[in-house]
Amino acid sequence: MMRSEETVEFRRERQIRFSDCDPAGIVFYPQYFVMLNGLVEDWVDDALDIGYRHLVIERRVGLPTVRLEADFRAVSHMGDRVVLALALERLGGRSITLKLRCVGAEGDTRMELRQVIVTTSLVTHRAIDIPPDLRAAITRRSGIVQ
Amino acid sequence: MMRSEETVEFRRERQIRFSDCDPAGIVFYPQYFVMLNGLVEDWVDDALDIGYRHLVIERRVGLPTVRLEADFRAVSHMGDRVVLALALERLGGRSITLKLRCVGAEGDTRMELRQVIVTTSLVTHRAIDIPPDLRAAITRRSGIVQ
Amino acid sequence: MMRSEETVEFRRERQIRFSDCDPAGIVFYPQYFVMLNGLVEDWVDDALDIGYRHLVIERRVGLPTVRLEADFRAVSHMGDRVVLALALERLGGRSITLKLRCVGAEGDTRMELRQVIVTTSLVTHRAIDIPPDLRAAITRRSGIVQ
Amino acid sequence: MMRSEETVEFRRERQIRFSDCDPAGIVFYPQYFVMLNGLVEDWVDDALDIGYRHLVIERRVGLPTVRLEADFRAVSHMGDRVVLALALERLGGRSITLKLRCVGAEGDTRMELRQVIVTTSLVTHRAIDIPPDLRAAITRRSGIVQ
Repeated sequence: MMRSEETVEFRRERQIRFSDCDPAGIVFYPQYFVMLNGLVEDWVDDALDIGYRHLVIERRVGLPTVRLEADFRAVSHMGDRVVLALALERLGGRSITLKLRCVGAEGDTRMELRQVIVTTSLVTHRAIDIPPDLRAAITRRSGIVQ
Repeated sequence: MMRSEETVEFRRERQIRFSDCDPAGIVFYPQYFVMLNGLVEDWVDDALDIGYRHLVIERRVGLPTVRLEADFRAVSHMGDRVVLALALERLGGRSITLKLRCVGAEGDTRMELRQVIVTTSLVTHRAIDIPPDLRAAITRRSGIVQ
Repeated sequence: MMRSEETVEFRRERQIRFSDCDPAGIVFYPQYFVMLNGLVEDWVDDALDIGYRHLVIERRVGLPTVRLEADFRAVSHMGDRVVLALALERLGGRSITLKLRCVGAEGDTRMELRQVIVTTSLVTHRAIDIPPDLRAAITRRSGIVQ
Repeated sequence: MMRSEETVEFRRERQIRFSDCDPAGIVFYPQYFVMLNGLVEDWVDDALDIGYRHLVIERRVGLPTVRLEADFRAVSHMGDRVVLALALERLGGRSITLKLRCVGAEGDTRMELRQVIVTTSLVTHRAIDIPPDLRAAITRRSGIVQ
């Protein structure tokens, strides 16, 4: 697998909500994963043009997380406008490794996540090969030269 | 208090997320309140131009809910694009009564909420008069003729 | 429907968590509904002896909320030990009306909820008659004399 | 730092709730972090006898997460009774590394987490030395021989 020179990052802006924050007035860390899960949905919908709901509900393909590593570098406060960003790191036979970030208005990375997702059958909860149309869309969108 | 003929409704579109839904595949009902809480934030920010974060964090004014009545008329599914709508129902001395709705793509009301909010001091957690600038903004925005 | 003199209340103790609280340091109000939803699960499991998971997953019976009225009387803080209490208010043909409360250590009601639940088929999402075993268990447990 | 032979693990049982689960009927992964955050609270309260609320609210000491690595090995379903377990892995000057697990009824590890927490001032949001009483309690509780 090769990548073209520039990393193609998928981005969405989001405001930090009252409901995202804890008694310390900052984002409660599990909430970052909820936000970034939404970003993966948007990526499947808007960048890959596959339809997240269609994939999960009609085709019964699950995208569970099997491993993640996260670094929390700076706090986010209620009302902050942040950018959520997603880039492909690795495309395996049954797994997709994503690099996700939450970036502040000054371009400062608040939180960084490496997330390994596998494609599963929601009937058997077993891993399956990445469906060909999903693989083709990821390849095309991420600037991978195969 | 009088209202001009047309109700001025504040609206925002939102997509129902995977994380909003329960094992029945539909919105978990407490999640409607999280969504509508976000709408109130947007209303204070964008329609009233007061700054929700500024109000809560710097001015230490809280907007807790003291009463609500909700009717759930139809289910919302993951991936649905819905409209969240807010209208003022009553403006008291220390309380704001809102009528909130979640509406489907065909204009069908999924869920309806009457919510009574009071303004409080976040220092004492006691009710306070609605701050004059907030009152003026609500009056202006809601087409109230005083 | 008649009720025996004493109301039979189902109760569970719970600690208010960091994750239940908002930047004001008090319970974020939608979180009360999450807590009380857990209480309904415990009631179905432990008081009615029906098995919530069995009901929802195997029998495909849903218990969606169609209406609720809630009053928030006093705030709850992180670390508070509260009692969540449930009593039957009305048993209809297809609906169950519950009276739920969150009570502080001094017996002070923090929040009160009247919740109307209907029994539905999770296949059709339509209302169905309350299953006979569920009805019998509620009647027995609530001291209803029929 | 030396550890005595046996690892002293702090454990709490918990039931997987309807509200913990997603449309696939299994625990929504960010919810594991919410559960395990509650376990850390219980550990500070019950094992360390420090008082989580007292620490955070009165003493203004925060325990933010700066890094985590998680492996998700098997799914948990609604209604499952699981054990949440916590063990100390490393005690630094300003950081505490915990090994957390969610274990099924058959002793099968569903999810495993290494979490690095730092002690901070909630006034400045800067790292501070682990307060001596907290350090002493962790040392005593974890069977560390210094």
